[in-house]
Amino acid sequence: MLLLALWRRLGRRSSAAGHVRCFSSAQALPSAEDFAARRREDALLGEIDARYPAFMVWGCNTDVGKTLVSTGMAAALLSSGKSQKSHVLYVKPVQTGFPDDSDARSVTQRIDSLVGRSESIFLSNRTMWLSDEASKKAALTKSSTDSSGSWKNSANSVKSSSSLTCETLWSWCAAVSPHLAAQQEGGGASDDELRKVLRRSLWEFGADASQTGRSWAFVETAGGVASPAPSGTLQCDLYRPLRLPGILVGDGRLGGISTTLAAYESLLLRGYETICIVIQDMGLGNNQHLSKQLHNRVPVFVIPAVPKNPGDDLAGWFHDTSSTFLQVVLLLEDAYHKRIQRLREMPKKASELFWWPFTQHRLVPEENVTVIDSRSGEFFSVYENKHGRFAQQFDACASWWTQGPDASLQHELAKQIAYAAGRYGHVMFPENVHEPGLRCAELLLQGVGRGWAHRVYISDNGSTATEIALKMALRKYAVDHGFLTNQGDKKPDFKVLALRGSYHGDTLGAMEAQAPSPYTGFSQQPWYSGRGVFLDPPTVCCQNRKWQLRVPERYGTIATEPAWDAREDVFALERDNTELAKIYSSAIEKEIMSSQGGLGGQTIAGLIIEPIIHAAGGMELVDPLFQRILTQQCKCHKIPVIFDEVFTGCWRLGAESAWELLGCNPDIACYAKLLTGGTVPLAATLATQDIFQAFEGASKLDALLHGHSYTAHPVGCSAAVTALEWFKDPSKNPNLLPGTSRLQEQWDPELVAEISSLSSVERVISLGTLMALELRSSSSSQKGYSSLLSSGVVKELRQVLGIYTRPLGNVVYFMCGPLTRPSVCSSLLRRMLKVLE
Amino acid sequence: MLLLALWRRLGRRSSAAGHVRCFSSAQALPSAEDFAARRREDALLGEIDARYPAFMVWGCNTDVGKTLVSTGMAAALLSSGKSQKSHVLYVKPVQTGFPDDSDARSVTQRIDSLVGRSESIFLSNRTMWLSDEASKKAALTKSSTDSSGSWKNSANSVKSSSSLTCETLWSWCAAVSPHLAAQQEGGGASDDELRKVLRRSLWEFGADASQTGRSWAFVETAGGVASPAPSGTLQCDLYRPLRLPGILVGDGRLGGISTTLAAYESLLLRGYETICIVIQDMGLGNNQHLSKQLHNRVPVFVIPAVPKNPGDDLAGWFHDTSSTFLQVVLLLEDAYHKRIQRLREMPKKASELFWWPFTQHRLVPEENVTVIDSRSGEFFSVYENKHGRFAQQFDACASWWTQGPDASLQHELAKQIAYAAGRYGHVMFPENVHEPGLRCAELLLQGVGRGWAHRVYISDNGSTATEIALKMALRKYAVDHGFLTNQGDKKPDFKVLALRGSYHGDTLGAMEAQAPSPYTGFSQQPWYSGRGVFLDPPTVCCQNRKWQLRVPERYGTIATEPAWDAREDVFALERDNTELAKIYSSAIEKEIMSSQGGLGGQTIAGLIIEPIIHAAGGMELVDPLFQRILTQQCKCHKIPVIFDEVFTGCWRLGAESAWELLGCNPDIACYAKLLTGGTVPLAATLATQDIFQAFEGASKLDALLHGHSYTAHPVGCSAAVTALEWFKDPSKNPNLLPGTSRLQEQWDPELVAEISSLSSVERVISLGTLMALELRSSSSSQKGYSSLLSSGVVKELRQVLGIYTRPLGNVVYFMCGPLTRPSVCSSLLRRMLKVLE
Repeated sequence: MLLLALWRRLGRRSSAAGHVRCFSSAQALPSAEDFAARRREDALLGEIDARYPAFMVWGCNTDVGKTLVSTGMAAALLSSGKSQKSHVLYVKPVQTGFPDDSDARSVTQRIDSLVGRSESIFLSNRTMWLSDEASKKAALTKSSTDSSGSWKNSANSVKSSSSLTCETLWSWCAAVSPHLAAQQEGGGASDDELRKVLRRSLWEFGADASQTGRSWAFVETAGGVASPAPSGTLQCDLYRPLRLPGILVGDGRLGGISTTLAAYESLLLRGYETICIVIQDMGLGNNQHLSKQLHNRVPVFVIPAVPKNPGDDLAGWFHDTSSTFLQVVLLLEDAYHKRIQRLREMPKKASELFWWPFTQHRLVPEENVTVIDSRSGEFFSVYENKHGRFAQQFDACASWWTQGPDASLQHELAKQIAYAAGRYGHVMFPENVHEPGLRCAELLLQGVGRGWAHRVYISDNGSTATEIALKMALRKYAVDHGFLTNQGDKKPDFKVLALRGSYHGDTLGAMEAQAPSPYTGFSQQPWYSGRGVFLDPPTVCCQNRKWQLRVPERYGTIATEPAWDAREDVFALERDNTELAKIYSSAIEKEIMSSQGGLGGQTIAGLIIEPIIHAAGGMELVDPLFQRILTQQCKCHKIPVIFDEVFTGCWRLGAESAWELLGCNPDIACYAKLLTGGTVPLAATLATQDIFQAFEGASKLDALLHGHSYTAHPVGCSAAVTALEWFKDPSKNPNLLPGTSRLQEQWDPELVAEISSLSSVERVISLGTLMALELRSSSSSQKGYSSLLSSGVVKELRQVLGIYTRPLGNVVYFMCGPLTRPSVCSSLLRRMLKVLE
Repeated sequence: MLLLALWRRLGRRSSAAGHVRCFSSAQALPSAEDFAARRREDALLGEIDARYPAFMVWGCNTDVGKTLVSTGMAAALLSSGKSQKSHVLYVKPVQTGFPDDSDARSVTQRIDSLVGRSESIFLSNRTMWLSDEASKKAALTKSSTDSSGSWKNSANSVKSSSSLTCETLWSWCAAVSPHLAAQQEGGGASDDELRKVLRRSLWEFGADASQTGRSWAFVETAGGVASPAPSGTLQCDLYRPLRLPGILVGDGRLGGISTTLAAYESLLLRGYETICIVIQDMGLGNNQHLSKQLHNRVPVFVIPAVPKNPGDDLAGWFHDTSSTFLQVVLLLEDAYHKRIQRLREMPKKASELFWWPFTQHRLVPEENVTVIDSRSGEFFSVYENKHGRFAQQFDACASWWTQGPDASLQHELAKQIAYAAGRYGHVMFPENVHEPGLRCAELLLQGVGRGWAHRVYISDNGSTATEIALKMALRKYAVDHGFLTNQGDKKPDFKVLALRGSYHGDTLGAMEAQAPSPYTGFSQQPWYSGRGVFLDPPTVCCQNRKWQLRVPERYGTIATEPAWDAREDVFALERDNTELAKIYSSAIEKEIMSSQGGLGGQTIAGLIIEPIIHAAGGMELVDPLFQRILTQQCKCHKIPVIFDEVFTGCWRLGAESAWELLGCNPDIACYAKLLTGGTVPLAATLATQDIFQAFEGASKLDALLHGHSYTAHPVGCSAAVTALEWFKDPSKNPNLLPGTSRLQEQWDPELVAEISSLSSVERVISLGTLMALELRSSSSSQKGYSSLLSSGVVKELRQVLGIYTRPLGNVVYFMCGPLTRPSVCSSLLRRMLKVLE
């Protein structure tokens, strides 16, 4: 149980001065809406005011002097600003040992005595939440905690004064780690709440103070960098979505070089910037050694040792350190300005230096360039210069369909990547073996390859994985059908059977397996000739709450085109016995037979499909029955079957691989994108032993002579191992349906159905982590890849609703990760509904 | 100044018992040869005995009880072994505060009192090196330090007894950090020496003890994981080449969760395995929280708090902890056996599951599979089951030409990769900007692109970079020569001008730019058609100490074929005015003119070359004069020029880019391999603004529609930024010639010349980080890619001399990194000489 301190808000400027603390067990936590409603509809999103400098104050251990450093910096700011008013916010989000210990009070009181007489400063110290025990004790010792706004030299008016606002957000009585205090005394400070309240403090302070002088904020953590927060989450993880730059207070004692560097590295591993280190001088020269180790890139400031006499008011110490703290704040100020300046110039520089893929640069004005400062789980932190803030945006394009991590997995991936980089960097692969490579192969064969694959060929991306798959298939076909031995001078014209609308990558070999499209024209790739026999596939989509089948005319008129209430019915194996199955089958057989010309003629030597979903082709759901029959019939003709699972594999569609949904195996399959969880490029081409044996021989020249320098790079393999294990671990993936290898439905079927019935929507599909819709177009120019129909929707989602989408022509889609909670997905869907309505 | 303790070695079994300590200022350090000569010729190489378990004992801070934990583990091993003898080695490589503090003595003395009466144990404690001060003080207080071998219950014979051998390798008197003690008291413990002596201790112990019972070793560090060693190097960096698995002693106090986790992460970041954490119970439950944070994957053992009473002999404490320490050693034993078992099974599993690139699996028997356990700088640590050891091997193939880091850069790369993974994971690139991507582009344009390039297109590997470059060149040509507007139905047959023997990657588009070769045959890639006009290039090589030019016949007979004493003369721009230049020029002009058929006919629409070196083509040095003229003439005809610098770029040839050596710029250039310093795949295609503008237009369909999912992934870009900055920083790259952007000669010209004059050697080239030689073959079957002529040389280098080479047919090469010291290169060359002689 927590008692709540009422945060009375009497308008902007007077809020600090008018602050009154009182206790009330009835009052609820100031609702999230109070904060978020200012701009956005729910608590999914957060923002950080970037218009003034705000820094974390970290310690490499407990009791290294964080509060004294905070005080010193505040004093430097408040003392030096004669010509300019300064407003300093000091936040202690979590305080234990309260009220005996109150770092916020300590800062307030010391500043009171430290800042020169001539300064006019408004001081306030408020505590927002207290545990029962803490509030009882506080009531007994009122004088020591009650310090609402007060004036130092109140002769000056509010307008011309500087101010120090100290805030403690959560307080417990026991002088132990916050997670233990919260256990003992209760306390509902979830990570989300804590971040939300902290963001609000920073935002309100900025709104109050930023126009009337220079504003600064310091957020002082509790204990060491990796000490637990009330929820048990490590503080360095808790505060990560805000990613404020920081000051690390080091340890000058024996052993302090080690604890300081280790703490620095823990911050680094989580993507924090540490601007400088401040360390007490214990006569061991730790600062010099630290500077050297950090290649002088992180300045190390040394301050005199703090006197140990408990009665000492430290006035002398603060006097001795004041010039150093002034240097510290000047450095911080400089770092802040450089950071913002860099962020501001980035769109221009990007427009000038980058050559973005798939981008007509003329259509991307500078102001449309998104500056991504960081990622935390599914969210980007985006710098918006216009608003002077860092805003959170949900990465709804899953960064070109690569993303899988939530914040926990992201950190675990960073750790395992770091370990692999530290252990191996990269090492030579052919004829060698290393643990991440072997483990990755084992997991792939036990997972996506289970029951059919025996060999793993590792490369760099989907396109190379496909080129390798094609080489495998063509060789296998040539061996099986006698084209290697009886060839003579005449070469057969090998084609692949493929579906119109499928896409396999942008290197020439992968392009050749793709039907002619805007990507393959002469102006894009003069060497493209289209080495495929391309079939038009039947597709399925949800329209007006029903799953409808669309069969191309060439298959004849289907007597009763089915429609289903539930998506599961589309995948039912019972459909193999329908009339439609026979129609598909005979059409496919005809196609194969008409293209087997043998030597010199056109010969179908392989099948390549994207199982279930044509992704780049516009998020079309291909009738699984059709693909199943296609696969089976190619196998009958000894035509090797390739499944390009670059997009569909590794849980993208709610199962580990799409062939599980299809109900039949390939001979060769390609995996990439989600394979590494969404971190670094890596691809795998899996094959049966039969395929492998087509390359066995006495000579090296029989081997598959294809490879890339970083084949099976340990960093990528480690990421893959981490991701593959994590996604299928029920203790880590809350979406795994118990006892199965399927994810629960992430997109609420009712909301999806609702969207499918909107007049502006042509069709919808949702499967696994994917929800896509095609906007209804009134003319053909609004269709296809170059359509701009969706631009309004995309702009609204991105700029107003904090959802980073990227359209495919007139198709708009949301893509989450295998770990994303359905509640988050529903929140996305509701926003989409709102926009479309 | 150090005094040396003489390490009298009286044969294997008696060495411990016969040990006598005495001081002598005259005696030199036992020479490196004493140790290394056992198997190898110099100190470049090291090995670790893998036949018994050896563990590091790390602390998260100083004074957390490492020595007590070491003692507890030793006691558990020595007490429990009634049925089996146990031999425990305890090594304290660095001791300060000696002789008052001696962790080795403390272990010896406590074991004496701890182990039960019935046990027969031989105890010895020796100290190898002492500083002047330490030895003086030790002489004064002899009783407290002198403890040569002694018996506990000597009734039993040596053969049937267990033993504890305690060794202190270096000792200083001052009770401060080792780097300060070494500064104050002197001491020559360089990192190399320290590792060498430690390796020797471990090796001799294994040789002495391993056949007569179970052996264990513990290496106890000083202070925290990142406390400095005598040289100032952090201990976690110092011991990294050995990469022993470890036990981390954590901190049970307030703040201890943070310091323990941070220390764990610092070890992780350096590629160490931490088998378990041991922590004192201070009533805060730190162990439980640590377990949770580590996902229970690293067991956390809790032991009672150590009594604070200085007089306490801790007998009671050890009694209370004995069962826990027994669990600890059982866990460690299990971890050791699992590790070795896994290492042993890896070759078989690899042979069964992997499909290695460019590998005829039938030619790779299991016993030839190299098990790479880790890398440290230029060295692999390879597990050799036959010898029961981890051996160091110099990575002389630079892992397919990717490698650049020494141990320091490897750690820095791991740090920056970790930071990028923690900060971004991966984020969407097109229309966006992030710091590592922008910085990478800036550095490329200031470096390899300076003076000519304006745009950076980022992809995943050399092959994709080439495909992109080709698309750029062909579009540019089409635009410039009116093929887009006047095309009609008839498409021109675009070809590229290329050199025979060049290689640009394994995807189809890159292959098309390659002349027919074993890689391009029908059985490898039925779709290959060879879309090039291929010229035979003149080449240069060193034969019999002279640099010789070899001009193909088609250029006519050159009156006086030049030969040069110095390689520099080959690159001299003065050669542009020679008769030879005119011959080249007219031959090239003829070729271009005869292939410009226009619409429907064959048209040369681009030039692609590997500047200077044909790498995969057999390490041929192409006459730079020829390539320079070729480039200039294509530019005259408005044929876009591509330099494929995937191999040659980023310092591989001793300059940042090969075009600097060539003396002329391309329009487009490709970089990969060394671009990330040798960590993860990343590639960049740089282009001029003219090329870029060929893709500008009103429609998205005019843009370059090519991309890969992980385009500009932040992890790769961060690695590239780190590597690019490091290589050109004189404070970090000792090979940079002052005031220039060239590396000093890494391969001693005299040794290279000597090799070139051997009768078994056909030709030699050396340039930058590359030294290659072609073995003289007596028949044509011994030439080319499938030749096995070099296998004997390669086997000797790899298995006996610790140099991991990988031949290109009958060409054997050494490739180091841009940071590798010339002394190391000379050592490699001397070994090569030895083998070839």
